[in-house]
Amino acid sequence: MTSTISMGQYLFKRVAELGIEHVFGVPGDFNLTLLDQLFKVQELKWLGVCNELNGAYAADGYARIKGVPGVLVTTYAVGELSAMNGVAGAYAEHAGMIHVVGMPGRAVQEARLMLHHTMEPGMDQTIYAGMAEPIRKTHTILTDENTMAQEIDRVIEAGVKSKLPVYIYVPMDVVGIPLDASRLEKPLNTKVANSNSQMEDEVVKSTLELIENSSKPSILADVLTIRHGGRELARRLASVTQFPTYSTPLSKGIFDETDSKYNGVYNGEGKVNPPIGLIILKASYLVSFPGCADSLESSDLVLNIGFLLSDSNTGGFTRKIPDGNLVLLGHDYCQIHDKKFDGIHFLPVLKRIVEEIEKDPKQFSIPKPDTRAKVETPLLSTSTSGPITQSYIWQRIGRFLRPNDIILSESGTAQFGLTDATFAADMQLITQTFWSSIGYTVGACLGALAAAKEQQQQEEKQLTSNQNPPASSNRVILIVGDGSLQMTVQEIGSYIRFGFTPVIFVVSNDGYAIERAIHGERMGYNDISMLWDHQAMLGFLGARQETGIKGRSFACKTVEELEGVLTEEEFQGARCIQVCEIFMDKLDYPWRLSSQIAVARKKMAQAMALQG
Amino acid sequence: MTSTISMGQYLFKRVAELGIEHVFGVPGDFNLTLLDQLFKVQELKWLGVCNELNGAYAADGYARIKGVPGVLVTTYAVGELSAMNGVAGAYAEHAGMIHVVGMPGRAVQEARLMLHHTMEPGMDQTIYAGMAEPIRKTHTILTDENTMAQEIDRVIEAGVKSKLPVYIYVPMDVVGIPLDASRLEKPLNTKVANSNSQMEDEVVKSTLELIENSSKPSILADVLTIRHGGRELARRLASVTQFPTYSTPLSKGIFDETDSKYNGVYNGEGKVNPPIGLIILKASYLVSFPGCADSLESSDLVLNIGFLLSDSNTGGFTRKIPDGNLVLLGHDYCQIHDKKFDGIHFLPVLKRIVEEIEKDPKQFSIPKPDTRAKVETPLLSTSTSGPITQSYIWQRIGRFLRPNDIILSESGTAQFGLTDATFAADMQLITQTFWSSIGYTVGACLGALAAAKEQQQQEEKQLTSNQNPPASSNRVILIVGDGSLQMTVQEIGSYIRFGFTPVIFVVSNDGYAIERAIHGERMGYNDISMLWDHQAMLGFLGARQETGIKGRSFACKTVEELEGVLTEEEFQGARCIQVCEIFMDKLDYPWRLSSQIAVARKKMAQAMALQG
Repeated sequence: MTSTISMGQYLFKRVAELGIEHVFGVPGDFNLTLLDQLFKVQELKWLGVCNELNGAYAADGYARIKGVPGVLVTTYAVGELSAMNGVAGAYAEHAGMIHVVGMPGRAVQEARLMLHHTMEPGMDQTIYAGMAEPIRKTHTILTDENTMAQEIDRVIEAGVKSKLPVYIYVPMDVVGIPLDASRLEKPLNTKVANSNSQMEDEVVKSTLELIENSSKPSILADVLTIRHGGRELARRLASVTQFPTYSTPLSKGIFDETDSKYNGVYNGEGKVNPPIGLIILKASYLVSFPGCADSLESSDLVLNIGFLLSDSNTGGFTRKIPDGNLVLLGHDYCQIHDKKFDGIHFLPVLKRIVEEIEKDPKQFSIPKPDTRAKVETPLLSTSTSGPITQSYIWQRIGRFLRPNDIILSESGTAQFGLTDATFAADMQLITQTFWSSIGYTVGACLGALAAAKEQQQQEEKQLTSNQNPPASSNRVILIVGDGSLQMTVQEIGSYIRFGFTPVIFVVSNDGYAIERAIHGERMGYNDISMLWDHQAMLGFLGARQETGIKGRSFACKTVEELEGVLTEEEFQGARCIQVCEIFMDKLDYPWRLSSQIAVARKKMAQAMALQG
Repeated sequence: MTSTISMGQYLFKRVAELGIEHVFGVPGDFNLTLLDQLFKVQELKWLGVCNELNGAYAADGYARIKGVPGVLVTTYAVGELSAMNGVAGAYAEHAGMIHVVGMPGRAVQEARLMLHHTMEPGMDQTIYAGMAEPIRKTHTILTDENTMAQEIDRVIEAGVKSKLPVYIYVPMDVVGIPLDASRLEKPLNTKVANSNSQMEDEVVKSTLELIENSSKPSILADVLTIRHGGRELARRLASVTQFPTYSTPLSKGIFDETDSKYNGVYNGEGKVNPPIGLIILKASYLVSFPGCADSLESSDLVLNIGFLLSDSNTGGFTRKIPDGNLVLLGHDYCQIHDKKFDGIHFLPVLKRIVEEIEKDPKQFSIPKPDTRAKVETPLLSTSTSGPITQSYIWQRIGRFLRPNDIILSESGTAQFGLTDATFAADMQLITQTFWSSIGYTVGACLGALAAAKEQQQQEEKQLTSNQNPPASSNRVILIVGDGSLQMTVQEIGSYIRFGFTPVIFVVSNDGYAIERAIHGERMGYNDISMLWDHQAMLGFLGARQETGIKGRSFACKTVEELEGVLTEEEFQGARCIQVCEIFMDKLDYPWRLSSQIAVARKKMAQAMALQG
């Protein structure tokens, strides 16, 4: 007699097997019985969110810290459609997500009943599943009892390997169907492997040869390195080779930025000989810090790992790395000079390369003559008083950061500005420079908080009894603009509800500054409500005397006021939820944003001229 | 030399031609230049909302009051996807919407650049347009300068006639293209007409004959009567014939509920001989008030106009009207007894029927012997003190209502409960009993407020100078539960920003009560954050001393407290924004909700038994 497990518990046991401890979502008529099954799986905790878009953002943020897909549970139609933009963002930026949708029972679907949440004509209840096709790697609708278990396994494995969203649709009548429990004894196969070992061999061998023969090598590790689990390998590669390292806007934080070999964020547009000077820098087309692009582009070998070549991540398509100096190690292909290896995933390749070099580092790397000096980060502002400017704020926040901090920077001025900050070691950045959906970070922060808590509890478990727990580690810091905040503000209530204590910087600059910088600087459509009282936000959402939950709020209009907050030990400790509102001029933009736009305009004009 | 007009202004001039004065949306990189064009059209005002889902809800709410599609402007990818659930709701419930999406320029699309908001692989920038296919009537992507004007006309006309959402995608490089302005001199053709006049004749003639020969006729006017512009015709039909009238849960308010011929909300499940009595009523399967279903179902002729036969609108499919007594006048077909007329729209049919009867009412209607007594509404509670119960609250709110009020009841206890209230004359109800997306009303209320303001200004213009403007007419009243409110709360800030003064009732009952009633009454997944301070909401979002915007907030835990608020003249006047929080037990449900669920369970058990 084989022991059985309900379909619902089978699914969530598989989720727990990935190391996941928190699941996000919103209840609805068609997922309630599924949630009953979830609640029976002891390893998992349910974090009910305010709405499904925020839930998708939270699952995405969780995945980025955790390294495995976040899980989102929604209900048929209204829930799954509300989440779409968030799922699409996880697709675009390879965060990964397992989106579980409760749907009407099989008999009801066959009868095509005119159920609520359904649409005329036809009452086809799989219509919404069809809509999500472009934003997922694969999906399954669990209608056949004989294949359910293997379908769940197949879809979860594909999600973990691809780091793209997958969908599991669960008709409400199937959640209790008994499945063979012994199947769970065999772990999921989530390991990324290249099926074409000959091609993989060639990529490894050729890359090692190029490394050996290079005289000015560089490592440029981009965001998909992190998303696909290659961050530690990239760090090991940097460590063993001592090659100069570079990140991109999206991968910032991948290397220890305090390391002597780290040269900054490469965002293209080198060799324009910009006059160095802060005022002029603003007006030039430069999109990396002075010297950074030239340093990288002077390499005779660039190991470009986990690349994502979007507009804002390449200085508006202004990278200048000749193919003859380039090794691309990507998630769906690798390329050595002009030879492309389709379907080869960088992760096994990188692992072999690192292990090979670690066997005998001298052969590959040390000593390798390199005349390039470290690219130093310029100090953009020496302000010590008066109004807070974009040129001042981001590097100042950089000095506030500590090792192990997780920081989220919202699309807009925060995202472009924070690139100027130097990170502490072992930090993680969450930002959506490619998908760029404003409001994202407020949801994603909830996921990051949950993942950080799991990490911290793991670390505490590993401590022996006579060790003290690390003080205030794993701070989670959210930087969000006033316009973005209005998109998704309710989820701050969830931080409070679940006992999280992030530091929240609110950039108060009267609207959508990133849009003002692009077009319509003074047009009314870029305005938002200026009437919100951010100082009252935590109280409204739950942190106040009456509830016994402590919250602290600060408003800073000057550098002096901000310094007072940032240097306060209690603020730094982050032991309760805190808001620090930073007022800035609405027409002040980070130089990187202005530069990026100028580059885009120049490119557009060139394209038009070519067409004309 | 023909005069020209930019593509953008052409589009918005056509929008203004429909009588629209407010446009909703969120700015984004790809719609900014389009918004420049919008701002040049004097007839239109831009209402920037906090996020796109709320914007879609607002456009939907606007359409329901205005009778023409609401207009929503979003940006490529992130914006259009965020709006999807709201657009789908407007589709399901025939609210109509013109969704204008700004997208990348044509050259960029052709080059398939890896622009932000785009997705690998392929960088096809029409991918999101494809996803929206099931939730729209038609669409156009404005790439061809030669057909732009006619495409805009075609799509808007289809949207107005069908009352279904339509999409206009605007590449950002086309907004300034000059179009022939003289085309605007020819108005859009938005009149619904049946192409098959022979079939239309037959429906009209047969219906009139049946009316003439009936002895117990009834009018059952459903929600699509309202959505498709037939409300006044239905009222004229009722007035000229003096037939007994009935509404449905979705069409409540279509008739004057104070009229002697009005018999209540028909929601099926008649002839079960329920014991009449409040306690027993709760436990029975009755889903209409006692006597209502039997009264309607005893008719020898039911004129069922604008029907929408979904589960919650038919007492869980328990209508019992024999085909031989039924005339169905629908938006996509009419049916007389068992003869179906595909493609015949009720609106021209109803118009001809009404006009025919009005020519000679006596022939058709008066006097027609009808032994049926008016169905009286039972009084569900005589409570005058103590805790506020579901059986008390809805009819009490009913007595608070005044002619011309617009009321929005959120999906959940409010939606089911408010059905018990007797409406004042000429009220309009907005509720989403079919699509049932929680949080909808908070967004929709913004649209209703804008539409109500337009109506009021119209009325004031029509007053001669020696008439006083109507005092506090067009009150807009929102009833929303605490769980739904958390979905979309930020839009209350928009009410304040734009100077609107709704009355907001917040049902504070600790979570998703409708889900508790369905399943998992005490399960944690039906909980929400209980930490929000609704009394601080208006202050946080902008109505406070410092801003000079007045807001009033009340918390009521007892009948006495609530009576104090509802009878206060200032509260009734609704001259500033007001919140009245009503605390109720979390396990107390409106009887209609319990009954609906019981019926659904019974049906499901029957279906299972048949299958087994």
